[in-house]
Amino acid sequence: MHPLSPLSRVRLRELGLAVGTLPCGPLNAITDVAGVGVGHVTLIEDQPHVIRSGVTAIVPMLGQLWKSGCFAGFDRYNGFGEVTGTHWIAEAGLLSSPIVLTSAFSIGVARDTLLALPFRHGVPERWHQPCAAETYDGVLNDGLAAPVRREHVEAAIAAAASGPVAEGAVGGGTGMMSFEFKSGIGTASRRVRAAGQPFTVGVLVQSNFGNRRHLTVDGVPVGRALGYDVTPSPQRRDDEASDEADETKGSIVIVVATDAPLLPPQLHRLARRANAGLSRVGGYGNNRSGDFALAFSTANVLPFEQTGIVQGLSMLGGEDMNALLPAAAEAAEEAILNSLTMAATMTGVRGTTVHALPLHKLLELMQRHSRAPT
Amino acid sequence: MHPLSPLSRVRLRELGLAVGTLPCGPLNAITDVAGVGVGHVTLIEDQPHVIRSGVTAIVPMLGQLWKSGCFAGFDRYNGFGEVTGTHWIAEAGLLSSPIVLTSAFSIGVARDTLLALPFRHGVPERWHQPCAAETYDGVLNDGLAAPVRREHVEAAIAAAASGPVAEGAVGGGTGMMSFEFKSGIGTASRRVRAAGQPFTVGVLVQSNFGNRRHLTVDGVPVGRALGYDVTPSPQRRDDEASDEADETKGSIVIVVATDAPLLPPQLHRLARRANAGLSRVGGYGNNRSGDFALAFSTANVLPFEQTGIVQGLSMLGGEDMNALLPAAAEAAEEAILNSLTMAATMTGVRGTTVHALPLHKLLELMQRHSRAPT
Amino acid sequence: MHPLSPLSRVRLRELGLAVGTLPCGPLNAITDVAGVGVGHVTLIEDQPHVIRSGVTAIVPMLGQLWKSGCFAGFDRYNGFGEVTGTHWIAEAGLLSSPIVLTSAFSIGVARDTLLALPFRHGVPERWHQPCAAETYDGVLNDGLAAPVRREHVEAAIAAAASGPVAEGAVGGGTGMMSFEFKSGIGTASRRVRAAGQPFTVGVLVQSNFGNRRHLTVDGVPVGRALGYDVTPSPQRRDDEASDEADETKGSIVIVVATDAPLLPPQLHRLARRANAGLSRVGGYGNNRSGDFALAFSTANVLPFEQTGIVQGLSMLGGEDMNALLPAAAEAAEEAILNSLTMAATMTGVRGTTVHALPLHKLLELMQRHSRAPT
Amino acid sequence: MHPLSPLSRVRLRELGLAVGTLPCGPLNAITDVAGVGVGHVTLIEDQPHVIRSGVTAIVPMLGQLWKSGCFAGFDRYNGFGEVTGTHWIAEAGLLSSPIVLTSAFSIGVARDTLLALPFRHGVPERWHQPCAAETYDGVLNDGLAAPVRREHVEAAIAAAASGPVAEGAVGGGTGMMSFEFKSGIGTASRRVRAAGQPFTVGVLVQSNFGNRRHLTVDGVPVGRALGYDVTPSPQRRDDEASDEADETKGSIVIVVATDAPLLPPQLHRLARRANAGLSRVGGYGNNRSGDFALAFSTANVLPFEQTGIVQGLSMLGGEDMNALLPAAAEAAEEAILNSLTMAATMTGVRGTTVHALPLHKLLELMQRHSRAPT
Repeated sequence: MHPLSPLSRVRLRELGLAVGTLPCGPLNAITDVAGVGVGHVTLIEDQPHVIRSGVTAIVPMLGQLWKSGCFAGFDRYNGFGEVTGTHWIAEAGLLSSPIVLTSAFSIGVARDTLLALPFRHGVPERWHQPCAAETYDGVLNDGLAAPVRREHVEAAIAAAASGPVAEGAVGGGTGMMSFEFKSGIGTASRRVRAAGQPFTVGVLVQSNFGNRRHLTVDGVPVGRALGYDVTPSPQRRDDEASDEADETKGSIVIVVATDAPLLPPQLHRLARRANAGLSRVGGYGNNRSGDFALAFSTANVLPFEQTGIVQGLSMLGGEDMNALLPAAAEAAEEAILNSLTMAATMTGVRGTTVHALPLHKLLELMQRHSRAPT
Repeated sequence: MHPLSPLSRVRLRELGLAVGTLPCGPLNAITDVAGVGVGHVTLIEDQPHVIRSGVTAIVPMLGQLWKSGCFAGFDRYNGFGEVTGTHWIAEAGLLSSPIVLTSAFSIGVARDTLLALPFRHGVPERWHQPCAAETYDGVLNDGLAAPVRREHVEAAIAAAASGPVAEGAVGGGTGMMSFEFKSGIGTASRRVRAAGQPFTVGVLVQSNFGNRRHLTVDGVPVGRALGYDVTPSPQRRDDEASDEADETKGSIVIVVATDAPLLPPQLHRLARRANAGLSRVGGYGNNRSGDFALAFSTANVLPFEQTGIVQGLSMLGGEDMNALLPAAAEAAEEAILNSLTMAATMTGVRGTTVHALPLHKLLELMQRHSRAPT
Repeated sequence: MHPLSPLSRVRLRELGLAVGTLPCGPLNAITDVAGVGVGHVTLIEDQPHVIRSGVTAIVPMLGQLWKSGCFAGFDRYNGFGEVTGTHWIAEAGLLSSPIVLTSAFSIGVARDTLLALPFRHGVPERWHQPCAAETYDGVLNDGLAAPVRREHVEAAIAAAASGPVAEGAVGGGTGMMSFEFKSGIGTASRRVRAAGQPFTVGVLVQSNFGNRRHLTVDGVPVGRALGYDVTPSPQRRDDEASDEADETKGSIVIVVATDAPLLPPQLHRLARRANAGLSRVGGYGNNRSGDFALAFSTANVLPFEQTGIVQGLSMLGGEDMNALLPAAAEAAEEAILNSLTMAATMTGVRGTTVHALPLHKLLELMQRHSRAPT
Repeated sequence: MHPLSPLSRVRLRELGLAVGTLPCGPLNAITDVAGVGVGHVTLIEDQPHVIRSGVTAIVPMLGQLWKSGCFAGFDRYNGFGEVTGTHWIAEAGLLSSPIVLTSAFSIGVARDTLLALPFRHGVPERWHQPCAAETYDGVLNDGLAAPVRREHVEAAIAAAASGPVAEGAVGGGTGMMSFEFKSGIGTASRRVRAAGQPFTVGVLVQSNFGNRRHLTVDGVPVGRALGYDVTPSPQRRDDEASDEADETKGSIVIVVATDAPLLPPQLHRLARRANAGLSRVGGYGNNRSGDFALAFSTANVLPFEQTGIVQGLSMLGGEDMNALLPAAAEAAEEAILNSLTMAATMTGVRGTTVHALPLHKLLELMQRHSRAPT
């Protein structure tokens, strides 16, 4: 186990904790799916505006950018939020754009940049619908200053690479909070065997949701125990919690990648199971929360220019999908927890401080429930 | 053109009429799609109950019954009606059952029979969701007498064959009416070229919807002109039509078959375009109407027992789908009209008579609008 | 705590266990919602066929049967199963039928019976779409013998009453199993305050899903610990579990009732949150599982005959819905667990025995994780 | 009838033509629904970039901007396009934002502007999801120059007013084309009686779709007759039309307003019927077309700040909805045709000219089919 200094932020597994039973990929990240790239641009400024924002880009197939698309599926858990490009995923099951995660104030910039990019790269015709998603960082970020610009979106896409993925308060996750603790970007992966072959399911989340009292780690209701004695909430005090109705607002975007050959309806199912990971950590999809999962498969490459009959597609048999469903849920659950354990305390606009999840306290609670090494 | 006696019922094209611009298949029927079989059981009895009902079964791939499934899509235009098996089509894009069309009183019998059939045929495991659909024949049929029984459903499936398809008051369409004229089963097909290859789109409808004043043939509003001078409506007189709200109730089930290799999202699109054919003849999806379209493709055969990774699937490119979309709309439009032109006047329960669409009058109206040979 | 004999079956709370934090209604049952009635018909026969089946009817508003409908919502978690009447719920947000739960072999009988019933009760026009749902009891029940008949469906509806609800192997749940343990019908409720008023959310499930190794009680992964040492599975032995793909098949129907004034989109949300309860106990919506949730509100009564503009409808504000969302998830989670703790070991067709969840062992595991009184 | 000079552009009814049978409102415009406002900003520049673009804003309830929302519904006919805010409409049935129509290049700007606007107007909390929609004007407009800016979006909203609505090449419709003729914005309305009361259904479209050979006016296939002899297409010549696959790309956004008290599921139905109007004029929802309809009702006003139980809502009975369904289809059909008859020939980027629909030729064709005054 990781030697844990009071301020260090580590991944869930470095604490000796884990969720689920399936093995992780080597990086325990969405980039364990071959070809998937992730790039971040992080914007932290104090003058002239207090900016805590950024952009995270996920490129589904690194060498195929603006050349090919892949199959995709989408699931809305709660709809107070925006993900663009989903009408086309619902219609055709196709994703032909990087997925860009950013602030609720800036998704439009991201979307317009994505529309124009292939034209700028010489693609003569329009084959894609831009896929951009957002969560709201207004607690820490001065979004009205419109800090995210076209060049940031382009830079995040250009930076997309395989390998380890930075987590916590980076990229699109810079200004986010979950369960009234600081959070941001998190990732995880699972390896499964299906149809006699090994496959990987990777997840990356931009996590920004949840009421502290609902926070659940590996089935242990740690949120109730943590309460507000450890850290004040930026939005309320515990004695205000007289009624369930004063829920925090928030959102999460869950991106699921797999190398298993899944067709669009199957990716829809995988996305839905990833949303189940949200339920496990204590998410209820509050009224003003935008909770969405997107899943794509890198197995069938669909070139833009290809016309006629596309031959040689493959599909995992339905029964073999059973192996992948818990993988999506487990990886989503762990990615959310990583977004918390990796994010450090941050102070932002109006002097608001959002505290980090206290890791020692978490460990102690897990041990008390026989769910962590002692 | 067909020599038209006052009582003879003929297909739309035998009247010298047509809709759309695409060429028909050799039979102008759903069975122009190779492997598709249709079987009818027609129940007409006067004692002890006045029965005007029946069953129509569509077997997507003759020879593959209870062995293989195919991809399918589904579109609800208006939802006051029942089609079973659609949760599975929405979930997995799979159809592994014959499609059985029958009376609203009897869809349950059809569904339970379909569930049990593969077990009776020795299929050891359950791989399918029964697909049965209904429209309401209570104007002519004493449905409370529960005339459709398991043996009728089994017989319709056993009778399913390729070749010409009986139309009008047969099978599941026996007791149906459309635009307040007698109707029932109708079929049509279109041939298209896509991706350099010929494909067929075939449609079969069980048609039971519409207000006379909305009936439109090839763009000509014949219903307004026909009014109720030619035949009294079984349900109302013209002078009662003071308010749009007293609409007739009704429903339609549209089944679309194609040999083009379409994946589930593409079949969803094809089904939706077939529902556009409904709009062309004057259907508005009234409040208590169950208007549904189902589409399947025979191109990718998916054996029940197949496990592991299904290789070698093919898919028509999205752009090439454009050729098929008008085909589905045209074929649905013509199938509905055939269900009318082929159905003869019928008297049923409570002495109610539903009159046939008057073909001479129809021809005259079409000629007046320069839309028929003179 | 209940004095627990080896064979006695008790509710979860009688074991000193609970899930969630919200208070229960007085009966901890769906009938805590005023006006909701539940009726069971249980069919257990050994000759001439081994029958372990039945019917459970839920009447949304006891005095309004065949007179009025109510608003409803529907959510599909996985689609290998049948629920009728959902096209109409999706279209109009209306439920005007009792909800009948039964065997996969018999849903058709239930549906046809429901269609005819209002006509037999003198309702002159058709205002409803029958709502019947099923899960598969073929492991214990000889469904091909078609044991459920019209009179059973009618009797279950006639028996519907408020008050305590029988659980376990009764009614539609008679032949069901979950997590490879015997289960059946379960119910639970929660009381919440929203908009300053008290409301009740009640749930009834017919539970028939899940892999033992995923069974989770209040966050504790008891299924992994129980394994197959306690009871053999009727379908496989543990040493066969070499691959995730050999999942059991199964299904669940979750019915949610509330007296909170929710409109159809809000009931859709409530149904979705109930499905989250499924995730908490370890359900993944396996490939061949039909997992559905239906929610209805008794607050706005919509008479069949009412025409014109319906005045005086009420709706809980969106923010106030937040209070209800955890209630639906908690009640669904507990109802599933009650369906297990209340069901006794049963032997059925082919001599197959499905064992009861061992309650002493469960308690011991919960204590070990500091989640039960010692 | 209007004295028609070769260059004048008039509305369909000024030509003596009409579609459908229902009476129009006084303006035959979406603004016949009381309280609905429309504002345009039109951008036509030749230096430094050739700009043919703009913004059209529809404010559902003038006077309630950023204070209240209303119920809404949404229907996707084909999904290659973007409409933001639809996740929230699907989830909650709420519209709390003006609807902004603009270029595919600029919807992001519109969306981000809409997000920020209520904050700038002092709304302390976020209650809305911005609703922006787009069609692609790249044939005439240099969209990569990003001509639409925040101030244009704000100006269009500020300009929104009741009264007559400019049509043709204005606002968001400036650079659009339909059936390979110049088009843009069109509007129409219908008056109906339902439940004994008068209601209005108004439609506004931004129309940018269709193949010339499919253009149908009041059932007459004028497109086939017009062919390319009258005007060359900017994209292809007739002799290239060897295969259905070379369809033009395009899109349409249909906005439906009504003062009838409809709940969200009912508005979904109304939107779907408006899409049927698309089918009537010859739209098939081509593969790369984004065809969407949005419907809202001004009858139930839902204040942002309102909490607790919303009392006194009203709903038109389902049967009474029948009166409104043809109204939505007819008004959509006529609005599309107005967008064509009102738009003049335009030359844009790369010197491309898109010709106006020749009105004399249209009239002649309609007369030949006995569908116009002679």
